[in-house]
Amino acid sequence: MPPVLTVGSVAFDSIETPYGEVSRVVGGAATYFSVAASFFTDVQIVAVVGEDFGKEQLEVFTGRRIDLSGLQKVPGGTFRWKGKYSSNLNERDTIYTKLNVFEDFSPSVPEVFRESPFVFLANIHPSLQFEVLKQVTNPSFVALDTMNYWIEGTPDALKKVLKHVHVLIINDSEAQELSGCSNLVRAARTIQKLGPKRVVIKRGEYGVLMTRDEGFFAVPAMPLERVCDPTGAGDTFAGGFIGYLAAANKISDEVITQAIVAGSTMASFAVEDFGLDRLLRLTKEEIHERFTEFKHLTFFDPL
Amino acid sequence: MPPVLTVGSVAFDSIETPYGEVSRVVGGAATYFSVAASFFTDVQIVAVVGEDFGKEQLEVFTGRRIDLSGLQKVPGGTFRWKGKYSSNLNERDTIYTKLNVFEDFSPSVPEVFRESPFVFLANIHPSLQFEVLKQVTNPSFVALDTMNYWIEGTPDALKKVLKHVHVLIINDSEAQELSGCSNLVRAARTIQKLGPKRVVIKRGEYGVLMTRDEGFFAVPAMPLERVCDPTGAGDTFAGGFIGYLAAANKISDEVITQAIVAGSTMASFAVEDFGLDRLLRLTKEEIHERFTEFKHLTFFDPL
Repeated sequence: MPPVLTVGSVAFDSIETPYGEVSRVVGGAATYFSVAASFFTDVQIVAVVGEDFGKEQLEVFTGRRIDLSGLQKVPGGTFRWKGKYSSNLNERDTIYTKLNVFEDFSPSVPEVFRESPFVFLANIHPSLQFEVLKQVTNPSFVALDTMNYWIEGTPDALKKVLKHVHVLIINDSEAQELSGCSNLVRAARTIQKLGPKRVVIKRGEYGVLMTRDEGFFAVPAMPLERVCDPTGAGDTFAGGFIGYLAAANKISDEVITQAIVAGSTMASFAVEDFGLDRLLRLTKEEIHERFTEFKHLTFFDPL
Repeated sequence: MPPVLTVGSVAFDSIETPYGEVSRVVGGAATYFSVAASFFTDVQIVAVVGEDFGKEQLEVFTGRRIDLSGLQKVPGGTFRWKGKYSSNLNERDTIYTKLNVFEDFSPSVPEVFRESPFVFLANIHPSLQFEVLKQVTNPSFVALDTMNYWIEGTPDALKKVLKHVHVLIINDSEAQELSGCSNLVRAARTIQKLGPKRVVIKRGEYGVLMTRDEGFFAVPAMPLERVCDPTGAGDTFAGGFIGYLAAANKISDEVITQAIVAGSTMASFAVEDFGLDRLLRLTKEEIHERFTEFKHLTFFDPL
């Protein structure tokens, strides 16, 4: 089964939610993505950490199907982020972002990663996403995440890389901003003209919406009694989604709808505890069980 | 097939949305509910209008399965409401509410309506909802809608009527306020202790969530390219939901999930034009077709 290559942040996160706080825990988009995707297929990370990222921190990757050959360690500090969530978890303030070693990051894709057919360009500067893409040989499936910061700040660089992307994974307000359309149907159709054949719109506690050749596919989020920390939920979704597709190694309508549910399943676990904690103790049996719960959540008989 | 009895407002609405405005059109919770439910079964309205509600206005009910024996006409003006929606349609300001003839409304359920097994108590003063319920002989299915105004203003009267209700149909912020729980799973479980065995939570453009004996059932809203006016969508949902159940005359898990989709189907039409306009020109074929689209929107194969 083909591997998935990802480029993105590996970071130290500090997180405050109404349910507690954690300080300097391992996080970052590429980390959440890789841990989630590694339940389904082999993952190859391209990223950079500083000298403060030691053996203890590397343990989140240990014993999983994650190849760290593309994880550079350079002088300086690891990327750091601190965020604080509102009482209902629907909003968050960034307390600080310290790029540190990411400031001079020049991604280099190891030789053995370059044939990877599945690529996820996590949320970083669109020029870095493009640099990585240039080093990969004719990938059959490229997905990209981005954020308002790049949509507003570097629209040309973003549009350049989008031309080579098959699937854009984005949240609803970002889709509206990128397209200039407040209506999500029109937003998605407008984005498709920028390059991505498919648009996957993440709606947080409301679930996910995906364009199809005709109409849409939508799945609600799993209602959870305990939502502790939404950090990384979007990247965890992407990991489950693309990991599932790589494992199936086929992009039919049937497989891609299952993959959306696999991504939603993984994200529903991620939010149940702080940082990576829930994913790190997750089992394949639990994943299978919750996937089945999604069927129970959404199934109805046709008329 | 058993009829559905409803009590609620029949009104003149004035509506402003980013897409235009209409003035003094027929609206009201009982009106939207009845028109929607009448596609599925016979409907009995208990409501009051003023002398300004003439033959022309009554035409919205004409030629439909709607019995107006319980529609009192009294001296004075019909209930009037004016609302203005925000640019994304997610918020609305009430410009005015004129109760008029509703101020002294004392609902009287006609003899022939009293055996109705299905009852929908639309959003009015909980004491009026209770008055109606007292006049109905042992109904097997009672659903109730309410709003923040009553949750805050008349909590005791609301809790009194809730003890006799099988299904509470409510939006998410109302569920949170009524239960004191921001988490919707806990909010729903808390509300169930007040009486309603089932809680149906309306989430606007995100769809509907319903409690089950075990877990939940959820359906996303149909993504629409043209959303013109959300007025009455919640009551239209209730009409499709309860109308479908009455037509099936059975409350199994299979039927009630189909009924949620039937309600979502009706609501998805209601928002496509101003006021009642889309519902008034709707056909059964269109309903059937969109119900099938909901299957296409949500179906995935189990693992």
